[in-house]
Amino acid sequence: MDSEVITVRTGDRPVVRDITEQAAAFVAGRGDGLLHVFVPHATAGLALIETGSGSDTDLLRAVDDLLPADSRWRHQHGSPGHGRDHVLPGFVAPYVTVPVLDGRLALGTWQSVCLVDPNPDNPTRQVRLSFLPAA
Amino acid sequence: MDSEVITVRTGDRPVVRDITEQAAAFVAGRGDGLLHVFVPHATAGLALIETGSGSDTDLLRAVDDLLPADSRWRHQHGSPGHGRDHVLPGFVAPYVTVPVLDGRLALGTWQSVCLVDPNPDNPTRQVRLSFLPAA
Amino acid sequence: MDSEVITVRTGDRPVVRDITEQAAAFVAGRGDGLLHVFVPHATAGLALIETGSGSDTDLLRAVDDLLPADSRWRHQHGSPGHGRDHVLPGFVAPYVTVPVLDGRLALGTWQSVCLVDPNPDNPTRQVRLSFLPAA
Repeated sequence: MDSEVITVRTGDRPVVRDITEQAAAFVAGRGDGLLHVFVPHATAGLALIETGSGSDTDLLRAVDDLLPADSRWRHQHGSPGHGRDHVLPGFVAPYVTVPVLDGRLALGTWQSVCLVDPNPDNPTRQVRLSFLPAA
Repeated sequence: MDSEVITVRTGDRPVVRDITEQAAAFVAGRGDGLLHVFVPHATAGLALIETGSGSDTDLLRAVDDLLPADSRWRHQHGSPGHGRDHVLPGFVAPYVTVPVLDGRLALGTWQSVCLVDPNPDNPTRQVRLSFLPAA
Repeated sequence: MDSEVITVRTGDRPVVRDITEQAAAFVAGRGDGLLHVFVPHATAGLALIETGSGSDTDLLRAVDDLLPADSRWRHQHGSPGHGRDHVLPGFVAPYVTVPVLDGRLALGTWQSVCLVDPNPDNPTRQVRLSFLPAA
């Protein structure tokens, strides 16, 4: 399978990182099919949202509101509140699929492929990009 | 790739629109593979839920409870509270995949393919249906 | 398509059931491609999370907090609060996709394929495993 792993710097604070450019470069020239983006981590997710107008910050805020980084969680390893990072992938899944037509992502105008990383303990992340040809 | 875009009317109020019929018609006669449903919009999602027994309304209610359409959001374009519509796809993803066997969707008895559109500002939506053959 | 249905016992209480072993056995020897896991039920979801350190319990807790099993729901069939089980798949989708390389799931060290079943009324569940070869 056409599949490769890229490294994305996420730093030491919760972040939404736009990786559309890397995804687009990966499928360029590949014809028709499906792009599969996958994060092989248990404390990160992927989302297709708009970036650059505040929605990335809004998504992190929603994650904080819905899954507070406090002491409620059974999972107690890592930084305080880290247990919620492990719950995140249940709601913000660690995969995304995007149609590819003639080597181009068929995203809407305002959609970006984004890595959602609430976890301050991992400054870099792996992301696997895979291409399934249509025929 | 066998891929086409359909237009779905969602009107000027938040709505869950059942598009199972269109999805089933699209895969009819195509053999085995995977149906990929994709919404190329930044303020809508897709869900596989039961319709006709109130769960579509319940889902909209949950969206309102969890992501209130108020002034908390950084994203401030559009109608008041519209910022939450941009957060929605982080939790209700804009893609869905369904196995197809002998040209039929392998859905459970109570599952429907649904477009979830909380955004009153876009009365029509595009939905891309794509088929990946199994071999 | 290489596709089969397995039966998973979920019992009469909300549960997160790790089915990684069955998924790994299904793709063994199949080469490169994509594993598609699908639950043909309207009251269950699938998640890729860590198990064995409390996060499975934490996920059920988050489901209870975010989608309380009370009388608020329009859908009123089944056990009290069952309406929320029908909303769950809107947020915890009933499908998951995982890259397969040389017959092995390309999961991260701490990721498991998990069936999320908040519904006490169905003691067993069907899960469909399908494999899409890369070429």
